[in-house]
Amino acid sequence: MKIKAEGTRAMERSRLFYLVADGLGDRPVAQLGGRTPLEAAATPALDRLAAEGITGLVDPFAPGVRVGTDVGHLCLLGYDPTAVYTGRGPIEAVGAGLNLEAGDVAFRCNFATVDESWRIVDRRAGRIREGTAELAQVLHGMELSGGVTALFKEATEHRAVLVLRGSELSPDVTDSDPGPNGEDRKVQTVRDTISDPSAECTAAERTAALVNEFLTKAYRLLSAHPLNRRRVEKGLPPANMVLTRGAGIMPELRKVTETYGLRGAVVAAEDTVLAIGRMAGLDALTNCRMTANLDTDISEKAQVALSLLADHDLVLVHVKGPDLAGHDNQPLNKVAIIEKIDRLAALVLDGAPAGTLFAVASDHSTPCEYRDHSADPVPVLLRGPGVRSDGVERFGERACAAGGLGRLRGREFFLTMMDLLGVTPKYGS
Amino acid sequence: MKIKAEGTRAMERSRLFYLVADGLGDRPVAQLGGRTPLEAAATPALDRLAAEGITGLVDPFAPGVRVGTDVGHLCLLGYDPTAVYTGRGPIEAVGAGLNLEAGDVAFRCNFATVDESWRIVDRRAGRIREGTAELAQVLHGMELSGGVTALFKEATEHRAVLVLRGSELSPDVTDSDPGPNGEDRKVQTVRDTISDPSAECTAAERTAALVNEFLTKAYRLLSAHPLNRRRVEKGLPPANMVLTRGAGIMPELRKVTETYGLRGAVVAAEDTVLAIGRMAGLDALTNCRMTANLDTDISEKAQVALSLLADHDLVLVHVKGPDLAGHDNQPLNKVAIIEKIDRLAALVLDGAPAGTLFAVASDHSTPCEYRDHSADPVPVLLRGPGVRSDGVERFGERACAAGGLGRLRGREFFLTMMDLLGVTPKYGS
Repeated sequence: MKIKAEGTRAMERSRLFYLVADGLGDRPVAQLGGRTPLEAAATPALDRLAAEGITGLVDPFAPGVRVGTDVGHLCLLGYDPTAVYTGRGPIEAVGAGLNLEAGDVAFRCNFATVDESWRIVDRRAGRIREGTAELAQVLHGMELSGGVTALFKEATEHRAVLVLRGSELSPDVTDSDPGPNGEDRKVQTVRDTISDPSAECTAAERTAALVNEFLTKAYRLLSAHPLNRRRVEKGLPPANMVLTRGAGIMPELRKVTETYGLRGAVVAAEDTVLAIGRMAGLDALTNCRMTANLDTDISEKAQVALSLLADHDLVLVHVKGPDLAGHDNQPLNKVAIIEKIDRLAALVLDGAPAGTLFAVASDHSTPCEYRDHSADPVPVLLRGPGVRSDGVERFGERACAAGGLGRLRGREFFLTMMDLLGVTPKYGS
Repeated sequence: MKIKAEGTRAMERSRLFYLVADGLGDRPVAQLGGRTPLEAAATPALDRLAAEGITGLVDPFAPGVRVGTDVGHLCLLGYDPTAVYTGRGPIEAVGAGLNLEAGDVAFRCNFATVDESWRIVDRRAGRIREGTAELAQVLHGMELSGGVTALFKEATEHRAVLVLRGSELSPDVTDSDPGPNGEDRKVQTVRDTISDPSAECTAAERTAALVNEFLTKAYRLLSAHPLNRRRVEKGLPPANMVLTRGAGIMPELRKVTETYGLRGAVVAAEDTVLAIGRMAGLDALTNCRMTANLDTDISEKAQVALSLLADHDLVLVHVKGPDLAGHDNQPLNKVAIIEKIDRLAALVLDGAPAGTLFAVASDHSTPCEYRDHSADPVPVLLRGPGVRSDGVERFGERACAAGGLGRLRGREFFLTMMDLLGVTPKYGS
């Protein structure tokens, strides 16, 4: 593949294989003799990449700020989350298969069971799995005040997404979902979260009223739905209400594929990551052999990645496992999944075209003993054409702290890769 | 020279010798056994400075962002280009000798040859060299609509600069120059680049109309010029049109000499660097023995720098050669010019007053195999009074990655030098 820029410059464009190990970073673990899971794991392929390449530490957003998987991945794809991220809603809605437009306000939803006074009986409607598509159908396309339309789609199990489409909508509204311990509490009236009497506040007030209008109509439509009547007859809790949370506005998201003139793909099992990839313009690939769990089929991911590298400039492969093991405080499982990730790297290293740029990174640390995402920076490496190697011989949190990249932010790390691919514009002349 | 601050603090003010090697940074080069040109060059003086001082890596603007010579030098002098840089025009206009005022909008220009329908016959008017001052004279001072005046001045060869002076002007306009392959295309009508119906858009629309008005009048004046009649008689293409590009607005640029109470000078051959130096308040020195090429007279530059150090606090010496060798993918020439730069450093090291602070930096990397500016950070060093030395023994891209300065931005590096000079204000009390 050749690109031509100003004048006569012409160079071989490099491909990028971008391996993202979710929640990879950790802290010293007593059970591992004071090593981190990455330090304790046998990782010959990652160590080889580190030794041949350049390493460093990356703060996904900024030092000291811990991030979610969504924000972490936005940063790893070069986005500024303060400009594009207001809440999880739009990502979930894209993940559920809706095509969002800039300005849409989206919510994560649960189907729930409420009584006549809207007191919550079951926040998940008995973890309903069957018939949610039918229920969603009667809510989808609902006309609301002021020319606003509600789009509604079921997601996995009792989950769903709501999108409000119209003018002057705002994500600055509260949740109707009272939260994890919400049983016996009432469905919350949605309010705006901005008290300032500005134009944006008006949009937030208006949006809050629209959600409340949607909930009233949804309760009526769902209560009357034959599927719910049958559930009641069977003694099952009816899915007669929707709880909303995580409001976010769909940003004007410039696709990285357009910004850099690339063709890209993401290989993952997790909906969040697939959705962010799609929003960034990447082809999203998954299949039933890939799971967002410890049992994911690593060689399947490697094979799919290798076939994509034939006609894509950027192939991001995501592996969820290290994050799950971190949340569950299972250091040995984390070591095991990291060793699987090393085999994935080895397979791609064997099969990738010459000149492929290898990048290994993570969206955040998930230290086992902390059982949640932390702000510890994550180790990263780059290996390929043009890379200034450093003296680091191993891929690990402490080894990479001495790396030649120093300490970067996720967005800067992404720009560095784009620069190595030779696709960035020049600032000035 | 003494300064006194609060209380009894009084210290010898240090002088700064600031050596900027244009395009110095590189990537591993196969022809040099995987070393960069700087790593391959014999640089005893630079290595001594590195060993006695502190080193690091500098991203001129930000990690992953590649910059032009203009933006790179603005950053190396402590400016934020997002606040002061809109296009190359003002720098070229200052370089051509015009005194710009804040709010002036300036353009880079070519004299060109067009037919009666403004189709471009020769983008450079046969690379005209003679008589451009005479031609410029008839355009200089042209009165345009709304009380706007055009300033016009010839530059090197077929080049010139146009400045619009008046109220409410904007740099957000397109080029009339169709670009490098513009022959057989028409002179482009200038348009605003902001479609948003805001106040700024109006200024852009107005400015676009003013440039179009200038071009119409310029075509008439130049076509009728006796010099062009003589060119046609001799069978030479007449310089009967001006092509404009690179619009930029002259910012309110606070001079670094005023900000820090310094007397400063820049020694260079390249107009861009001399112009930015002047804009920053530096005395700009050049002579015919200095070239912006590989054959520049290094000892002349050293001698001029040494004499300037007698009565200046800051002397910036710029050497263009490494950038040229990078653009041309000539690693051996890059090694050779770097070795000349090392001799320049040695000469200044021998002759400079005791207590001189030495700084070595670069405006950007120009890797040979990439043949253009890249975003790779550049190696830097500081050596002199008050500097905390590190263990780095050599001046090179990879050696400096382990340096005690870590990884800084160009503006931060400049502030660090100002702090070592003892001329910075205190934030807080």
